Amino acid sequence: MNVREESLKKHAEWKGKIETVCRVPADSAEALSLAYTPGVAEPCMAIHNDVEKSFDLTRRWNTVPVITDGTAVLGLGDIGPEAGMPVMEGKCALFKAYGGVDAYPLCIKSKDTEEIIRTVKLLSGSFGGINLEDISAPRCFEIESRLKAELDIPVFHDDQHGTAIVMTAALINALKLAGKNKEDIKLVINGAGAAGIAIAEFLLGFGVKDITVCDLKGVICRGEPWLNAPQRKIAEVTNNRLLKGTLKDAMRGADVLIGVSGPHCITKDMAGAMAKKAILFTCANPVPEIEPQDAKEAGAFIVGTGSSANPNQINNVLVFPGLFRGALDVRATTVNKEMMIAAAYGIADCVSAEELSPEYILPYAYDKRAHERVAMAVADAAVKTGVAKIKGQ
Amino acid sequence: MNVREESLKKHAEWKGKIETVCRVPADSAEALSLAYTPGVAEPCMAIHNDVEKSFDLTRRWNTVPVITDGTAVLGLGDIGPEAGMPVMEGKCALFKAYGGVDAYPLCIKSKDTEEIIRTVKLLSGSFGGINLEDISAPRCFEIESRLKAELDIPVFHDDQHGTAIVMTAALINALKLAGKNKEDIKLVINGAGAAGIAIAEFLLGFGVKDITVCDLKGVICRGEPWLNAPQRKIAEVTNNRLLKGTLKDAMRGADVLIGVSGPHCITKDMAGAMAKKAILFTCANPVPEIEPQDAKEAGAFIVGTGSSANPNQINNVLVFPGLFRGALDVRATTVNKEMMIAAAYGIADCVSAEELSPEYILPYAYDKRAHERVAMAVADAAVKTGVAKIKGQ
Repeated sequence: MNVREESLKKHAEWKGKIETVCRVPADSAEALSLAYTPGVAEPCMAIHNDVEKSFDLTRRWNTVPVITDGTAVLGLGDIGPEAGMPVMEGKCALFKAYGGVDAYPLCIKSKDTEEIIRTVKLLSGSFGGINLEDISAPRCFEIESRLKAELDIPVFHDDQHGTAIVMTAALINALKLAGKNKEDIKLVINGAGAAGIAIAEFLLGFGVKDITVCDLKGVICRGEPWLNAPQRKIAEVTNNRLLKGTLKDAMRGADVLIGVSGPHCITKDMAGAMAKKAILFTCANPVPEIEPQDAKEAGAFIVGTGSSANPNQINNVLVFPGLFRGALDVRATTVNKEMMIAAAYGIADCVSAEELSPEYILPYAYDKRAHERVAMAVADAAVKTGVAKIKGQ
Repeated sequence: MNVREESLKKHAEWKGKIETVCRVPADSAEALSLAYTPGVAEPCMAIHNDVEKSFDLTRRWNTVPVITDGTAVLGLGDIGPEAGMPVMEGKCALFKAYGGVDAYPLCIKSKDTEEIIRTVKLLSGSFGGINLEDISAPRCFEIESRLKAELDIPVFHDDQHGTAIVMTAALINALKLAGKNKEDIKLVINGAGAAGIAIAEFLLGFGVKDITVCDLKGVICRGEPWLNAPQRKIAEVTNNRLLKGTLKDAMRGADVLIGVSGPHCITKDMAGAMAKKAILFTCANPVPEIEPQDAKEAGAFIVGTGSSANPNQINNVLVFPGLFRGALDVRATTVNKEMMIAAAYGIADCVSAEELSPEYILPYAYDKRAHERVAMAVADAAVKTGVAKIKGQ
């Protein structure tokens, strides 16, 4: 039985991958009077007098909704809000299993940018942080940046930054093995949607200098008439050599190829034309840009994919549980660049120098120590950059 | 230590009265591939092809948000959305403890009727039912009725109908003891907010003929210039004798007084002027309309209050867990009058003829058998009235 069929069967058996549990006694009149009326009036009034107390007297210190509009679910595209819920629920399950975070899945029946922003803002008093998920580009950029600016709790669009962080973690360790410096490499990103754009921006902040982004239509170069708004923005700060042409042209002589695009768009010839000790992170799901076997045969040094069936799975499951755990632990008011870079190093550092090899550059997604390490790194960075309301544990 | 101080201390210790738990394995690559990517694509596509499958392949069959705008929290009034959260969270805890329902607390940072309706509609694909809570009158009427009309899942404003149902349950058993018929009694309701209006409407549907509603300004009579819209509507179908005057005038000779108003607005004289075998349900919280001791001294036959400190606590905790359990079990598309009346009888029937006494007319709120009985009665009524998508268990 293949994994998708088996998964469907399991979902029908599970009937929900998370549930809520009651944490208080409810078996006597006295218990009810403490957890509910009339006693509950006192914590209510304490929060009325100081809203910050909502983090002490309710579960808010630990709650994050996983919010989607169902427009960019996995590789499936715009399948609708309800249809996105198995993914959201899965994320909530992993939030708890790996980060101890209480996450609720929420789908919004609207694709209107303003309406989604407004809905999340209206609900924001219920939560300690906001995880946006599977919202299609370019709307996701505006939705995330506006919410980040207008809310004082962490807001994180996982498809952008979770992906950028785990790619960066993989790159850190791959460059160690290749003996190359991030400042000197030529790096190509194929795919200019939410993930591709976010990876380019993030890697620039991280210190990579020579980045070229490609889309289905070819190399993204400032002045091209077919660019959308986010692509125009990224064109201003990438491809300084003003290369035009196709992905094939961009990949020639490149040290690193990051694929967040579609199936089998890279040939063995294209992989073979890269620089020595080439690194390919081909993360299209479920079918990668090039099969790992083919990339290796073409001379690639390190290959990573989105699948657990191959070595070096590059999966943002490594990011979000620990990132929110750390942010919530110090009651961070945002998720800033420093916290995200700390998360990338936190993940990379889980693989010791002895363990590191071309077939093992990242910890496994189900390794709880990795998530703990990310949480500590993120909390530390939040405190150091002055965005933490709690300074020490 | 009093209960409110003790409750505050407990809330600080609990740090949340509910939490989520992960129900699936997450300790291997294989487990991840089934609960999350890539396997999860299959249940996603199954729901994309048939939205009803969201009830089979996610937790939706069992989820209910407890939604407030924080405008009418307990007896505390408009304390704000975050400050209402301890109550919402408490409800969620009881939803699970008594009904097995997975409930999430959500507060909405808006008092605008249209915006609240829109927000709930946008989120409705995430849930199996909607519990509205502590939204002030008259907005709550419009919000609930519009959502009921526009959504195909159960919508229930607990402050209106939960209160009406448990009052009706108490009335059923009190009338048995008093040897009176619902068709013949004179019944007075003091308080014309969400609860008072809903109780009047519900008791009319239940079969009580002679109902008079009072507010702070006096008896509600058609034509009075000071009535608001919901009061004008209820005036058309109550007080057929066109009585004018004060609560005192209305109570003279009345068989039943239902108080959902404020502290100590009923004197011993007023209670003493009621009919023989008078029934008083004085449910103002935390201080009742008249102290039970005073009512008894004035000749009252049966007294119920909102407090567990006195006999006959009339608490809508007896309603919502079982009502939603029953509605969810048969995937009801609404909560209709028949389901609510069935819930009232379900509660009343928990007290056997042998147990029934003026000091014991209702089961205890923490009696799980009562909630099970309500659930079965509600599910049965939903099937009988043709609003259940699942016909048999």
